[in-house]
Amino acid sequence: MPVNYATPPADRLHPVAGVRLGCTEAGIRKANRRDLTLIELAPGSRIAGVFTQNRFCAAPVRICKQHLAGGEIRALVINTGIANAGTGEPGIQAAHATCEAAAQLLGCAANQVLPFSTGVIMEPLPAERLAAGLPKCQAALRGDAQAWHDAAHAIMTTDTVAKAASRQVAIGGKTINVTGISKGAGMIKPNMATMLGFIASDAAIAQPLLERLVKEAADASFNCISVDGDTSTNDSFVLIATGAAGNAEIADAGSADYAALRDAVTAVAAELAQAIVRDGEGATKFIEIAVAGGRDHAECKAVGYAIAHSPLVKTAFFASDPNLGRILAAIGNAAQAHATLGDLDVTKVKLWLGETLVAENGGPAASYREADGAREMAPAEIVMRIDLARGQAQAKVWTCDFSYDYVKINADYRS
Amino acid sequence: MPVNYATPPADRLHPVAGVRLGCTEAGIRKANRRDLTLIELAPGSRIAGVFTQNRFCAAPVRICKQHLAGGEIRALVINTGIANAGTGEPGIQAAHATCEAAAQLLGCAANQVLPFSTGVIMEPLPAERLAAGLPKCQAALRGDAQAWHDAAHAIMTTDTVAKAASRQVAIGGKTINVTGISKGAGMIKPNMATMLGFIASDAAIAQPLLERLVKEAADASFNCISVDGDTSTNDSFVLIATGAAGNAEIADAGSADYAALRDAVTAVAAELAQAIVRDGEGATKFIEIAVAGGRDHAECKAVGYAIAHSPLVKTAFFASDPNLGRILAAIGNAAQAHATLGDLDVTKVKLWLGETLVAENGGPAASYREADGAREMAPAEIVMRIDLARGQAQAKVWTCDFSYDYVKINADYRS
Repeated sequence: MPVNYATPPADRLHPVAGVRLGCTEAGIRKANRRDLTLIELAPGSRIAGVFTQNRFCAAPVRICKQHLAGGEIRALVINTGIANAGTGEPGIQAAHATCEAAAQLLGCAANQVLPFSTGVIMEPLPAERLAAGLPKCQAALRGDAQAWHDAAHAIMTTDTVAKAASRQVAIGGKTINVTGISKGAGMIKPNMATMLGFIASDAAIAQPLLERLVKEAADASFNCISVDGDTSTNDSFVLIATGAAGNAEIADAGSADYAALRDAVTAVAAELAQAIVRDGEGATKFIEIAVAGGRDHAECKAVGYAIAHSPLVKTAFFASDPNLGRILAAIGNAAQAHATLGDLDVTKVKLWLGETLVAENGGPAASYREADGAREMAPAEIVMRIDLARGQAQAKVWTCDFSYDYVKINADYRS
Repeated sequence: MPVNYATPPADRLHPVAGVRLGCTEAGIRKANRRDLTLIELAPGSRIAGVFTQNRFCAAPVRICKQHLAGGEIRALVINTGIANAGTGEPGIQAAHATCEAAAQLLGCAANQVLPFSTGVIMEPLPAERLAAGLPKCQAALRGDAQAWHDAAHAIMTTDTVAKAASRQVAIGGKTINVTGISKGAGMIKPNMATMLGFIASDAAIAQPLLERLVKEAADASFNCISVDGDTSTNDSFVLIATGAAGNAEIADAGSADYAALRDAVTAVAAELAQAIVRDGEGATKFIEIAVAGGRDHAECKAVGYAIAHSPLVKTAFFASDPNLGRILAAIGNAAQAHATLGDLDVTKVKLWLGETLVAENGGPAASYREADGAREMAPAEIVMRIDLARGQAQAKVWTCDFSYDYVKINADYRS
């Protein structure tokens, strides 16, 4: 059960002119579940993406990067069940074959198709099943809200809920729609992107700005989350702009129009990213870690992730046990991952849980009472604040707790 | 239940002339358990130590470093229950008070006493209970094997077995005894040392060489292990040389005598370090990760730890599920922690589980069958080998799996 999250009903999602979606049951790994999605983009659409930093990046990630550097993208193909990662040269061929099959259906070139896969690593992708399923996806193509809703379900793996978010914003007298879907629950510590995230807008925006926007949005959303510290081989986040809204093309990063679109896209991305953490494998709590007073953003992030990745901190949250010294220990460990923290003066660090000041001067705050800690640990939604007291930078990390069910889900995943 | 480990019987431990140990129930955090140990060293003993890199290092760690830089050490005081970490200035005073109390009993100066604590973080150390318990420890001081055995038990926290190891080696016609004890089961990813490890020898060795030896032994033992990736605030590993064996003082790092002592000390340290992993919280498997073909030791270690810290890899081992793509994903992630791996060519990486070649050329080996993977995953003792194929360096990391019981132990720890 996700923490304070439910899939928005279809009528809360705004269709995006120029984008049609269709999905089917292709039997890729298991029968009787939608596991193949086709997204068709109108001619003239622009797209930009960010991808995993994992050196064992999946075959589709490599193909996506190549195709994005080439011609105009007309379609996305997304399969679940098999990640097509750790599959060597045969994996590359399978991803190519998928692009070819989609291109033939849609009457475009293979390098105008982006492939995305998610599922088990190091097992072969049955490209022939994808090819057989694609005509059914094509027949199902629709541009309405229900199609977005269906696609959000079809890209799920260990997710317990489908994830979708949507915003409208007025730009240059036109109504701009921004709608996205994402999936992911485990192997979640994106670096540049999430497991899979797709956001489309009908805004007109210049390609260089779109590329800037996808990075800005990722840094404020998918790059702030962690379930288990494991960066996936398949993380991909793409942002589509069809231009169908007819606004004057946004071409200036300093403009109010860019800021308006950025805020809408970032809001959708953050909602989708948080939904992944709320649906984190076995999660019973959603925890925001806000780190301030750092010398730079990177060291604030390093402190946030040191806390978010500590199994001891995560199990304490699961137990609602204010064993908060574990948080101090995690802060103290961040220097091992991030060298600039080597001179962190821990006597200046302050830690709050909710509104309760927990630690200062290197130890428990004089005003701190365990009963206050216990009260702050109880809710399903927790905000933790840390002040490093050595600069003006800040960063946020969103994470979840670590429960029996995480072990159960991951011990059972393939069976 | 530890994985293939039992505490050696007392008669397998060699007493070390010049070292006496005594312990008692001081009621530091819970009643009816031995939680306070005094180790007395004969005049002329030498000692060297390595300590945690955690910035929130405990008060006793800070005091130990100061006292080691000062006069001759005559005693060690070790308590469990309270870590005296994250305790600010009052923690420093409590550690000082403990040294004072021991010094008064033994007729030495307070800076000749080293304090060690392990247990809950951010709770105050009841120095008065330690002071009240120390006379009982003093009355119990004995130099025999049983005293070592008792001390191994008295320093336990969440450990399920006491950890001790012992070797004899002939140096310069004299029999040298090397005996050590350690504790630790969770918050284990030592960096320079382990939770607590104490090794004593009656060898005569020059102080600079002893300081070299403690680092060499730590790097080949405690610095190779991880249970959960959390470096403790209290990690301390000290090596004592009483000189009572009467060998000619070892003063040359290139000598056969130094090599013989180094091998004996390292063997004891490695046995103690592995015992900590075998007794890792909730562990059902002991896993050796041997990484070869790296450009340097550090990048081999980074790959080993990326695997050892992946919750997904650890839960797959718990389930005996050959979901081995997770290991490739972990290798691919190591670059995020260690920049030199940014150009790792994953198509050259090879992975073996036991004698089974699992992956090569960026994907599953042609000869690999899942049945072989399943067979290699089944035993409680597993060796994994990785060849990075880009250099001559190598490193080993020892770790354990991740089970329901890890969550249970850490969700319940304080209750």
